[in-house]
Amino acid sequence: MSSSHGRVLLAYSGGLDTSTILAWLIDEGYEVIAYLANVGQEEDFDAVREKALKCGAKEFIVEDLRREFVEELIFPAVQANAIYEDVYLLGTSLARPVIARGMIETATKKGCEYVSHGCTGKGNDQVRFELAFYGLKPDIKVIAPWRLPKFYERFAGRSALLEYAESKGIPVTQTKSKPWSTDENLFHISYEAGILEDPNTTPPDDMWKLTQSPQKAPETPEKITIEFKQGIPVKVTKTESGESYTDSVDVFLQLNALARKHGIGRVDIVENRFIGVKSRGCYESPGATILRAAHIDLEGLTLDREVRRLRDQLVTTKFSEILYYGFFFSPESKFVRGCIPPSQTTVNGTVKLSLYKGNVIIEGRSSNELLYDEKFSSMDELGGFEPENTSGFIAVQAIRLRRYGLGQAEKGKAGADTKAAYALE
Amino acid sequence: MSSSHGRVLLAYSGGLDTSTILAWLIDEGYEVIAYLANVGQEEDFDAVREKALKCGAKEFIVEDLRREFVEELIFPAVQANAIYEDVYLLGTSLARPVIARGMIETATKKGCEYVSHGCTGKGNDQVRFELAFYGLKPDIKVIAPWRLPKFYERFAGRSALLEYAESKGIPVTQTKSKPWSTDENLFHISYEAGILEDPNTTPPDDMWKLTQSPQKAPETPEKITIEFKQGIPVKVTKTESGESYTDSVDVFLQLNALARKHGIGRVDIVENRFIGVKSRGCYESPGATILRAAHIDLEGLTLDREVRRLRDQLVTTKFSEILYYGFFFSPESKFVRGCIPPSQTTVNGTVKLSLYKGNVIIEGRSSNELLYDEKFSSMDELGGFEPENTSGFIAVQAIRLRRYGLGQAEKGKAGADTKAAYALE
Amino acid sequence: MSSSHGRVLLAYSGGLDTSTILAWLIDEGYEVIAYLANVGQEEDFDAVREKALKCGAKEFIVEDLRREFVEELIFPAVQANAIYEDVYLLGTSLARPVIARGMIETATKKGCEYVSHGCTGKGNDQVRFELAFYGLKPDIKVIAPWRLPKFYERFAGRSALLEYAESKGIPVTQTKSKPWSTDENLFHISYEAGILEDPNTTPPDDMWKLTQSPQKAPETPEKITIEFKQGIPVKVTKTESGESYTDSVDVFLQLNALARKHGIGRVDIVENRFIGVKSRGCYESPGATILRAAHIDLEGLTLDREVRRLRDQLVTTKFSEILYYGFFFSPESKFVRGCIPPSQTTVNGTVKLSLYKGNVIIEGRSSNELLYDEKFSSMDELGGFEPENTSGFIAVQAIRLRRYGLGQAEKGKAGADTKAAYALE
Amino acid sequence: MSSSHGRVLLAYSGGLDTSTILAWLIDEGYEVIAYLANVGQEEDFDAVREKALKCGAKEFIVEDLRREFVEELIFPAVQANAIYEDVYLLGTSLARPVIARGMIETATKKGCEYVSHGCTGKGNDQVRFELAFYGLKPDIKVIAPWRLPKFYERFAGRSALLEYAESKGIPVTQTKSKPWSTDENLFHISYEAGILEDPNTTPPDDMWKLTQSPQKAPETPEKITIEFKQGIPVKVTKTESGESYTDSVDVFLQLNALARKHGIGRVDIVENRFIGVKSRGCYESPGATILRAAHIDLEGLTLDREVRRLRDQLVTTKFSEILYYGFFFSPESKFVRGCIPPSQTTVNGTVKLSLYKGNVIIEGRSSNELLYDEKFSSMDELGGFEPENTSGFIAVQAIRLRRYGLGQAEKGKAGADTKAAYALE
Repeated sequence: MSSSHGRVLLAYSGGLDTSTILAWLIDEGYEVIAYLANVGQEEDFDAVREKALKCGAKEFIVEDLRREFVEELIFPAVQANAIYEDVYLLGTSLARPVIARGMIETATKKGCEYVSHGCTGKGNDQVRFELAFYGLKPDIKVIAPWRLPKFYERFAGRSALLEYAESKGIPVTQTKSKPWSTDENLFHISYEAGILEDPNTTPPDDMWKLTQSPQKAPETPEKITIEFKQGIPVKVTKTESGESYTDSVDVFLQLNALARKHGIGRVDIVENRFIGVKSRGCYESPGATILRAAHIDLEGLTLDREVRRLRDQLVTTKFSEILYYGFFFSPESKFVRGCIPPSQTTVNGTVKLSLYKGNVIIEGRSSNELLYDEKFSSMDELGGFEPENTSGFIAVQAIRLRRYGLGQAEKGKAGADTKAAYALE
Repeated sequence: MSSSHGRVLLAYSGGLDTSTILAWLIDEGYEVIAYLANVGQEEDFDAVREKALKCGAKEFIVEDLRREFVEELIFPAVQANAIYEDVYLLGTSLARPVIARGMIETATKKGCEYVSHGCTGKGNDQVRFELAFYGLKPDIKVIAPWRLPKFYERFAGRSALLEYAESKGIPVTQTKSKPWSTDENLFHISYEAGILEDPNTTPPDDMWKLTQSPQKAPETPEKITIEFKQGIPVKVTKTESGESYTDSVDVFLQLNALARKHGIGRVDIVENRFIGVKSRGCYESPGATILRAAHIDLEGLTLDREVRRLRDQLVTTKFSEILYYGFFFSPESKFVRGCIPPSQTTVNGTVKLSLYKGNVIIEGRSSNELLYDEKFSSMDELGGFEPENTSGFIAVQAIRLRRYGLGQAEKGKAGADTKAAYALE
Repeated sequence: MSSSHGRVLLAYSGGLDTSTILAWLIDEGYEVIAYLANVGQEEDFDAVREKALKCGAKEFIVEDLRREFVEELIFPAVQANAIYEDVYLLGTSLARPVIARGMIETATKKGCEYVSHGCTGKGNDQVRFELAFYGLKPDIKVIAPWRLPKFYERFAGRSALLEYAESKGIPVTQTKSKPWSTDENLFHISYEAGILEDPNTTPPDDMWKLTQSPQKAPETPEKITIEFKQGIPVKVTKTESGESYTDSVDVFLQLNALARKHGIGRVDIVENRFIGVKSRGCYESPGATILRAAHIDLEGLTLDREVRRLRDQLVTTKFSEILYYGFFFSPESKFVRGCIPPSQTTVNGTVKLSLYKGNVIIEGRSSNELLYDEKFSSMDELGGFEPENTSGFIAVQAIRLRRYGLGQAEKGKAGADTKAAYALE
Repeated sequence: MSSSHGRVLLAYSGGLDTSTILAWLIDEGYEVIAYLANVGQEEDFDAVREKALKCGAKEFIVEDLRREFVEELIFPAVQANAIYEDVYLLGTSLARPVIARGMIETATKKGCEYVSHGCTGKGNDQVRFELAFYGLKPDIKVIAPWRLPKFYERFAGRSALLEYAESKGIPVTQTKSKPWSTDENLFHISYEAGILEDPNTTPPDDMWKLTQSPQKAPETPEKITIEFKQGIPVKVTKTESGESYTDSVDVFLQLNALARKHGIGRVDIVENRFIGVKSRGCYESPGATILRAAHIDLEGLTLDREVRRLRDQLVTTKFSEILYYGFFFSPESKFVRGCIPPSQTTVNGTVKLSLYKGNVIIEGRSSNELLYDEKFSSMDELGGFEPENTSGFIAVQAIRLRRYGLGQAEKGKAGADTKAAYALE
């Protein structure tokens, strides 16, 4: 049969949903190339390949994107202290741009005029993928089956999917599906939906996959050091053994292994999705949790106060939102990412940490940058400091406050009754 | 002898420094009233009184400011998620406004035209105290001996202080002084100076005073719930015993006790002082650490996304800086504090937590506010949601990105080589 | 005939578009009530009524919303110095919330389950109206014909509209339509579309309607004063005649008349619409332009510096965006609007202005607030100021810079070659 | 006589103040080199030289810094739309960094360990100069006579200065001094102090020096075009004559001449100085006023919306404050300035303007950047746009608002009485 509708590159995971989509797209008259990005998830890639071909894929492509994921996405996020709503370290968001870019490059190479994915219609990932697709290739066409009535009405429940799979000879894993969904990559795993949708339900212990429970973690703290250059981790050393790692991917994977062992990196939140609904998510981001603590600590020692303020205000907040909402390939992202390196020129040095049962404990830090001057900072000696200067500093800072206070007093608000002057009305 | 220079209200701690200042001020011809605020620090108030009078104070006044400290300072800080440089919960900063206000009220009542304190010339506290003094009473006069050459040159080392104390018959505690300085109140204790001035020195285990070491904390997690109304904690319940606490000070002290037991709330940072020097500080903020985690979590469930963004950007950042720098009694503080309650009207509900060896683990949350709609948020059912709408949403979000992409392509930057279009130049 | 589909409240202007929509909705089986808000536009309301009824409206309702427009929308915008992208004073945006609220109240009263409007599918107004509808009445149903293929495909050009109008006996104004679209209310008039879509086309002189051309404006400046209370204009006085106006609507209309006479308030910009397209718009906002200049000036004299910074950062920017994007009835709007009054408590006083050929010239300002202290500010006398304090102030401000400079120097970047240290790399 | 105290580089203007300081420094035992920066002010440099030498200067140095002033300071400010408190274009602030840098370079070259200036103790300039000195050369020593009691008590009034000048044989200009102070450079002139200290006094007509009064400006508008590359003006063309200018300094001076002729660029404000006092200032910034209007306009056509928002929030506000407060040579300035060029890559194109009696009227703009798409933006044709998408966009934007509305309604706040739901409490 000639493919009358054209060629589609499908983001294929090997699961029931994308296998159904694969077969259905062929039914609909498309030729399908299945694409799987290796971003560090635990996966039997050969089994996925076999299944894709069995479902009718013309070709199956797996790409190892781990290095670019670490170097182009994760490290800038570490430099920027990226975080969403105070808690979420953005593991899924960070992987989407590299996957989408891989897909667009492959689609271009393979002559696909369509790309497709299995994301649902209420989530963030559909937005992240598609905005990336359109940003990178404005004329790309997207097929999102879970938003097409023809598809979602036909496959309204799991049984319809299973029935269709059977009819197409698609092998279905017999293991009972977990009562939640996950997304995994080398940065993190997310859990959402199913029983987690009640925000008051405590996740069961056996849900957590990437980290040891703090209760089962070792009784003895483990010490490590992390060295940063321009805000990027360049070396992890285990203090006891002296072993160290310097390759970017190794650094990250070693931190993952350490954090996993010590029960570090679990969070459970209700977050605000881009489309405006609240959603409960649980996440394990093991190595990233250590890195964030260490990077923030080193900035205390090496980053100028005002640069930090500006970076926090602009870069941290905005870059996090850009990642979460899916605007990585946008003019504002290019602008914000361009502001990260100039903020990190002095963030060079080493942080000492202790890992223990869920805790990342900072034990010290050092740097050759000279923004901290022990002698000058000392409370016990003057070290070139003239205390009278502070009197002038305070007196000048007080000019505005005293003028305001006098004004308030003359308007009858202050005076003896000083509480009144600053009470909220 | 008549006091020719006038009457001074001195912030008196009973320590060697302020005892010396007390005696010295009398030497200089002032009449001194000693003032000690009870903000929850561990202290033998009678012993301090006795010492003050022995040093020559005309009067000794101790005021219990704990309730106003909790209700007027700590609770707004909880509502605002106040934090300085990502780590420090502002325990010292929060106490300063209530102490300064107590002093100004007392000074006014007692006819003191001067206030005095024992803060050093390099720190934040001198600024916090004095800006508060001037804000509340613009014509107050401040004597800061550690910034007066006449004083600091005379008392350049500890031995000069001890010698003077002896000469004045001031009793000196024989216990060897610790190699760091502390400031304690019911919110926290701080450690700085001395051996901590080397930022790479790990604090000794026996330094920490307000919390158990995580390693020595109980092996079994303890479960509690915290109920908030308008962002303020109104009830803490221990799940196992069912005991609960509703008085504002009790709520806070119970959380302190729980956190202390479970090793929660230690941090160690290099921070940026207002005068522009970096400084290493260690802090224990036990109950506050639990409260912060619980409050942020409940906001996930109950606070509108955009209100949260605005509050984070304006209130959290600015209120934290106002507290740290000492501008609590200023027009901008009044403005910012006025913005806190409108941000918290929906922050009502209960958070379930588990405390374990340094960890504050969120286990669930509930609320009668209806911003989270389980059915609507569900990934497994449509619940009134029309997935096609998201297609339109994405298409419109992409308009700007596609236009930009087309423009870049026509300028030869994008096209097949999509990596180039978004590379940083 | 029984109306099978239900009852619609239609925003009706009397123009060809909404007349067609009115008749078409009836064709489609709806019962239509036509609604016209009087927000100060130049209009023959009786003629519109007659036409609505002729088109088949069951009822025509006109509501005078001018006072709430001025007091609830315009005045907060003046207090906030609201402006979009540095130039546009938001005249259309400001009227939408009062119109939408009037419609929802009327729809509720009249038992309409639908509301409808004639906005096109690319503009901002559809979004502003509909977000307001949904915010005020979440279960309201909206009919937007220009986004329904059934409608927009049928009425693809003006001739189709005219033909349909004729077939329905709808009277069509014979005056040749202008080569642009307008939206008018008492705050402003907007011009867009048509010949203005080429951003390099200079608008013809006869386009401008609400203001005199500066070239034709009087040769003599006219002096006025505006008095503000809490940032709201409470009195306008013509200096020469001594006439003054204090009613809120009068104040605004008088400023309009003065600005119109003196050619004040024209702008021409390319702006960014909410849906992500750029658009060229010309606007005349006569009275608002005077008010903005006067209000900003008075804030210089009466508003604390730091409150101003925070207000600019939070309120001005965000409130303007809320208005432009159409989120007036949203949680964030309620929050931001709640922050306006606390920012204006001291903005009391009088501004003297001179109006001349497009210029609003500030000639002086006075206030009983006492934030400006002539004697203290004076460069010619000390007035209680101790110049040495500034030495301390500068020395402390320089601590951070000197430390940074020393660090750079030791790293070989600065020293004698001071240019290099601060060159951008 | 050997100079026992060392060598001073004095910022010398030729006026009474700095002449007195020059002579006084010599009296005090310093060797003085007088330094005058040519930043485009109207000045007889030879007369100043002669006077400096007559006062006893060892050497007089004049440096032409106009080009670096325009290219390194003014153009970044144009790119950033820098403005202080909505009105002041920062003319004095912009000149300080180039003058301070010139002085530090000269001081280094000439072996001066001191620099000195004649700024008063209440103003901004002392801070700007000295922070720049310390930033560029952390070990420089500054002599600020107007903050030294020894100096300011001796020279407390003008007559003391005159008397001293006579005693030293310093020639004093016989022209009566103006009742205000000025600072002039090629960007602007400022007027402050004297009769201007009453903020309600209208400046006399003959005060304004750099611009024609709008009333006396030509009756006929004059048309020009300005071309920008990456936000920098690269060409000014007079439409009628066709003359054009491309050299950076010429571009600026031509715009000055045009603005001067047409009465453009006067402002009168009360501003907030860094030391916390309010101050009245009048300014003429002729060419800069035209440039700002043109640059903002072109950004409308060529700058992405979100990049603009971020730039406004971070760069515009902060860079303006950095300039005004005097932190040009600081880490945060380096960071912020580093963010300017990435924000301007697409700001390429030409703006058409008309200049008339104080008005800068935008008449059109064009660009080869393709962010504006006339066909796509058109209200009159679909041009590839699918109006249904906007329905989905609005529906998704409304999800959050409807959820909030439903929640409010269930809590009894909304419903039929929609006004109540959004009333401020």
